[in-house]
Amino acid sequence: MKIISILGVSGSIGTQAIDVLRTHKDKFQLGAISVGRNIEFLEELLYEFNPPLVSVMNEADYNRLKQKYPKIEFTYGDKGLIDVATYRSDLLLTAVMGSVGLVPTLKAIENGVDIALANKETLVAAGSLVMQKAKKHNVKIIPVDSEHSAIYQCLNGEHLSEVKNIIITASGGSFRDLTRDELTTVTLKDALNHPNWSMGQKITIDSATMMNKGLEVIEAKHLFALEVPQIKTLLHRESIIHSMVEFVDNSMMAQIGNSDMRTAIQYAFSYPKRYWKNNPLDFDTISTLNFKPMDFERFKMLKFAYDALEIGGTMPAIMNAANEFAVAEFLKGKIEFLEIEEIVESRMNQHKVVQDPDLDTILYYDALYKRAEVNE
Amino acid sequence: MKIISILGVSGSIGTQAIDVLRTHKDKFQLGAISVGRNIEFLEELLYEFNPPLVSVMNEADYNRLKQKYPKIEFTYGDKGLIDVATYRSDLLLTAVMGSVGLVPTLKAIENGVDIALANKETLVAAGSLVMQKAKKHNVKIIPVDSEHSAIYQCLNGEHLSEVKNIIITASGGSFRDLTRDELTTVTLKDALNHPNWSMGQKITIDSATMMNKGLEVIEAKHLFALEVPQIKTLLHRESIIHSMVEFVDNSMMAQIGNSDMRTAIQYAFSYPKRYWKNNPLDFDTISTLNFKPMDFERFKMLKFAYDALEIGGTMPAIMNAANEFAVAEFLKGKIEFLEIEEIVESRMNQHKVVQDPDLDTILYYDALYKRAEVNE
Repeated sequence: MKIISILGVSGSIGTQAIDVLRTHKDKFQLGAISVGRNIEFLEELLYEFNPPLVSVMNEADYNRLKQKYPKIEFTYGDKGLIDVATYRSDLLLTAVMGSVGLVPTLKAIENGVDIALANKETLVAAGSLVMQKAKKHNVKIIPVDSEHSAIYQCLNGEHLSEVKNIIITASGGSFRDLTRDELTTVTLKDALNHPNWSMGQKITIDSATMMNKGLEVIEAKHLFALEVPQIKTLLHRESIIHSMVEFVDNSMMAQIGNSDMRTAIQYAFSYPKRYWKNNPLDFDTISTLNFKPMDFERFKMLKFAYDALEIGGTMPAIMNAANEFAVAEFLKGKIEFLEIEEIVESRMNQHKVVQDPDLDTILYYDALYKRAEVNE
Repeated sequence: MKIISILGVSGSIGTQAIDVLRTHKDKFQLGAISVGRNIEFLEELLYEFNPPLVSVMNEADYNRLKQKYPKIEFTYGDKGLIDVATYRSDLLLTAVMGSVGLVPTLKAIENGVDIALANKETLVAAGSLVMQKAKKHNVKIIPVDSEHSAIYQCLNGEHLSEVKNIIITASGGSFRDLTRDELTTVTLKDALNHPNWSMGQKITIDSATMMNKGLEVIEAKHLFALEVPQIKTLLHRESIIHSMVEFVDNSMMAQIGNSDMRTAIQYAFSYPKRYWKNNPLDFDTISTLNFKPMDFERFKMLKFAYDALEIGGTMPAIMNAANEFAVAEFLKGKIEFLEIEEIVESRMNQHKVVQDPDLDTILYYDALYKRAEVNE
């Protein structure tokens, strides 16, 4: 039995991970979990899985639950996330949203817990630190993003030194068929309507702006130790080819499947094995797959991400923090869609880069660039 | 330096293999070679590669060449093929056409020489014998067919027990857009005009009849130890996805690339490594990939192959021999295109199957069913 703990169990990835655990109760056991405010969902999990350690966001919920479930250990707040991360698991799924995942992930790595990484902001903000620490503690970082899971699978049995390029596919998100002019009038509701994937709100907006692909490019650089020009992106509207690897001999490997995040989640859980799963892709029902070169004029945010990666240092963390701030404002209805990229661009322009930042520096700038007003 | 010997060096695969050796003279060394009657090409090779052992088809050429090149060892005929196969190489490329490749391949395996298998008829006629012997002598059989190379690459790092299905893609050959009615009037010249691949005459005709895909299905069964229903075929006119593997978790891996046989040849030579190669596939130039379910009414020969595989025993060898005979007749202009499948079907119907045949039995029926008249 592999013990799997989950940071962010009530989110989109967290609940799909629970589905995976439910399907393979003979192979996986739920370890420690954290939730935010969705206590109703948590209580269902307590009945079904009886987890040994549970973290909630606030103290009031903590006090109430402790009374109600005396046999379960509870914890809360930022410390709670670290308690879950450092629980004696075989694998920690980091499925919280945003840079809040960074410190608990580092703590888990220090404790020798393998990571199933669904929180890409961790690598975007502090990829070098995280990968160095993972290497030092001999910890596996197994990606859960469908694109990175695809690349991880393509690389299985292969040598990184024989990789020429990776090609990250992009559906294009909710607004892929709109021109930049047409983007001036789109609404929040439009943005949340992703054509292929059922995901959380933040990542769905990031898909619409193409920042999600930008974060993935940065994530890929760290996960697979690549040079920036080796990381290509390609528009592929069906999201059937989840990503590809091109080797030095021009042979390309692609991982293919339905738009079902549970495949990548389960792979991260079962790696290096594969377990049975329902709902196969029937190629006899597919008549065409479409591809288009990436358009960096149309999708400016992706260009920002490549720029941030080239600049290095604190810049990717600042880009990520500015994006988290801007997307939150958009989700609250305070700004228009195109203002998201304006905010990210202006905050990146304003920032004085620090090269080789330590964790405290990253956390300082991350907090600073998520504020409504930034005075650096 | 890996020493690579080649059976059938002057054919389509053989000459492309020479191209690969030419590109990587620092990594591969040409060992023993065999040619048929193309002595002019052979003499060019003697100057460029100075191979230690050379087999030709007939004694007259043998006598003449022995005089002319006293420092090179020559041999000829059926024994010559075995001399080449059993030369002390690291790898033998079996690129002769038809079932003549069978006995030399078995001899190479007995001598512990790994096989780069381009002669699919070897596995079609005697797959069980060949794979058993390879296992016994701990010899690798690395496929050179682009489809099987694709599957071999997809399986790299994976477990055969976790394979659900393989999907062999088929361009459809020269006549893929014709109805069966339209096939009644096609010519030899039409048949030899393959839309994607530059290959030898026999295999180009086999592509047009779809028998090539049938041979590949049988080859795949033996190479990858699969059950017949696990082997799927899919029409994919661009030949960009060379084949796919579907795992139990519904994740699919595909190998992708240009229609360049040298990629598969080089992979077989360099395996488990990958070496640099010219001429990459640029995905930014691809707008669509097309797929269509296989049509077994339209492509009867593929149905025959599945039938032969289900029947087992000598039936695949008979099907192959009948096909070799019929294709030769078609290439000589003696029969019409659709008569190829009539001959194969009637010879299969006529045969009384022998289960678990030994090598002599297979060779007996192979010779019998290649004759103009078969009296079993």
